[in-house]
Amino acid sequence: MSGSKCTRLGGQLVQQLLDSVDSVLFDCDGVIWRGDQAVPGAPQVIKLLKKHGKKVFFVTNNSTKTRKMYVDKMSTLGFDVAEEEVFGTAYCAAMYLKTACNLQGKVYLMGSDAMKQELEAVGIQQTGLGPDHIFGKQTDWANVPLDPEVKAVLVGFDEHFSYMKLNRALQYIIRSDCLFVGTNRDTRLPLEGGTAVPGTGCLLQAVETAAQRQAATVGKPNRFMFDCVASQFGVDPSRCLMVGDRLDTDIMLGSNCGLKTLLTLTGVSTVDEAEANQRSGCAERQRMVPDYYVESIADLLPALQG
Amino acid sequence: MSGSKCTRLGGQLVQQLLDSVDSVLFDCDGVIWRGDQAVPGAPQVIKLLKKHGKKVFFVTNNSTKTRKMYVDKMSTLGFDVAEEEVFGTAYCAAMYLKTACNLQGKVYLMGSDAMKQELEAVGIQQTGLGPDHIFGKQTDWANVPLDPEVKAVLVGFDEHFSYMKLNRALQYIIRSDCLFVGTNRDTRLPLEGGTAVPGTGCLLQAVETAAQRQAATVGKPNRFMFDCVASQFGVDPSRCLMVGDRLDTDIMLGSNCGLKTLLTLTGVSTVDEAEANQRSGCAERQRMVPDYYVESIADLLPALQG
Repeated sequence: MSGSKCTRLGGQLVQQLLDSVDSVLFDCDGVIWRGDQAVPGAPQVIKLLKKHGKKVFFVTNNSTKTRKMYVDKMSTLGFDVAEEEVFGTAYCAAMYLKTACNLQGKVYLMGSDAMKQELEAVGIQQTGLGPDHIFGKQTDWANVPLDPEVKAVLVGFDEHFSYMKLNRALQYIIRSDCLFVGTNRDTRLPLEGGTAVPGTGCLLQAVETAAQRQAATVGKPNRFMFDCVASQFGVDPSRCLMVGDRLDTDIMLGSNCGLKTLLTLTGVSTVDEAEANQRSGCAERQRMVPDYYVESIADLLPALQG
Repeated sequence: MSGSKCTRLGGQLVQQLLDSVDSVLFDCDGVIWRGDQAVPGAPQVIKLLKKHGKKVFFVTNNSTKTRKMYVDKMSTLGFDVAEEEVFGTAYCAAMYLKTACNLQGKVYLMGSDAMKQELEAVGIQQTGLGPDHIFGKQTDWANVPLDPEVKAVLVGFDEHFSYMKLNRALQYIIRSDCLFVGTNRDTRLPLEGGTAVPGTGCLLQAVETAAQRQAATVGKPNRFMFDCVASQFGVDPSRCLMVGDRLDTDIMLGSNCGLKTLLTLTGVSTVDEAEANQRSGCAERQRMVPDYYVESIADLLPALQG
C-alpha cells in the first residue's frame, strides 16, 4: 500500500493483495448478496478464501437478524458460514453492553426481536419490544411507568418506532446512571430498484436530540465491531482486508482500524464518489477512499482458482 | 439600548423602555402562563399595555393549537385577546406555505388537528393526520401509496409520529418538487415540575436525517414569525419589544429581527445562562443575551399603573 489509492484491482495485484492478508472482513448487503440474491460468484469466493487458509468474517450494521438468522439466510443463498464468523450489530450491541459496559440491569430496547434474542443470549433482560402507541394527555407523558431495573437504552432498527417510544427513551436517559447505546448511524436502508427507507440513524438522531446527549454506537465505522472480531480471533489489522460497498461505513471502518480496504461496486457507493473524496483535501473524507476497488467480488475468483 | 445588556429592569427604566416601544410581542408558556395557570398579574399587564396604546401580540412555537384555541385558553385564564393578535406555528406554517411558497397542491402533514384546521383556513388540503402504523414487509415500504397531489411535507408536533410516517415523509420529500417545512426546532417540551417530553425538533431531525435535506422552519428564532406580524400590522422593529423566557428561541428571535429584548424568569432560561452567553465572546451566543430581564412580567405593573 503505497500512497496511491483507489486502484482498480486486477491481474497480478489480486494475488499480491491476497498474499498480504490472513483475514478478510465482508460487509453483506451489496457485497455478497443484494436483497435476496447472492452476488454471482460470491459463495465460491468465500469458499476458496477459506480453502486458501484465510479467516473470513461478516460484519453488518443491520440489526434485524441474529447470528443464527444470518447463517440460515447465507445457507439458503449457497454460502457455507458458521455463526461465530458473523458479527451483526444485534450481536455486537449485546457484546458491548455485556463486556465493554459490564451492564448490571435491564435494557430499554428500541429494536427488533433479533436484538432481544442476542441480549438474552448474553444474559441481559430487556423491555420495550413491539408497538407502544400514545395514550393519555401530554402532562402524563413524562410520568409513564418506567422499569426501575433499566440501566441502558439501546436503539436499533425498530419498525414500531413511535412518539411514545421516543418519550420513554428520554425518560430513561435523563436518569443519571443510564447508558445510551445505538447500533449504527446509517441514515437510509437502500432497497432494490434504487429506493430506500429510513435507517436506524434517523431514529437514533431523534432520541439524541431529545436526550441532548450522544449515544455510543457499535456499528461501522465505529471500531468496536472490528475489535469484537479481533479480540475473539486474534486478527492482525495490518494483515486484514475490509471489503464493502459503502465508503462512509465499510471503508471508513477499515481506515479507522488500519486495515487494507476494497470497495466493491455492487452496492451503494461509486468510484466517482471515492475519487471526489480523494481530491477533497479533507482528512476526514480521505479516510473514505479505498485502497482498491472491483466491479464485484467475483473479480477475485481467477486468482483464487489459479 | 447602549452596549450594556442583560440589565435588571426596574424603577425608572421600566417607563423609559415602555416609552421607547409601540408594540410588544409575548411568548406564551413560561411568560404569560405556566401550564394551565396565568402568571399572576399577567392579564393586567396585557390589558394596561393596550390601554396605553401599545399593540400586543403573542408568538408561540407550540403547533398544537389554532389561533381560536389560543384565544379560548387565554380567555379562560383572564386575558382579553383577539385571534388576530395570536401567531402560533400552526397558523404561521399555513401562512408560510400559502404566501411565501404560493403552494399549489396538498400537504403531507405530520402534525396536529389544529395544523389541519389552520391549513384548511387558508385553502390548503392535507393528508396524513392521525395514526399510521407499520404494515407489510420492508421491501414494500418504499412503495407505500402516495398522494400525487402532495407538494409539501410539513412537520409539527405529532403525538402519532411513527416509523411509517417518517417513511412516508421520506418518500414524498425525495420527489424533486416537494417542499419541506417544519414548525420549529424546540428539542423538548418543558412540563410543570421540571419534567419534559420530546419536542418537535426531535421529529424534524429524524425526517431531515432520512431526507438528507434541511427543512425551512417558521417558528422562533426564524424571523418568519416576526415578519408575519410585521407585514400584517406595520410593526417598526426598532420600536418593538420581544418578551420571552427562552434565550435560544425568544431572545434570539428578537436579536435576529433588531427588536428590544426582555427575558422573564418565570420559565426555562436563567440570568446565569444569559450572562454566560455574554461572557462567551461568541457572536452567535451573544445574540442570546437579552437587553433586560425581570423576575416576572408583573414587574411591569407599577409603571403601567402609575
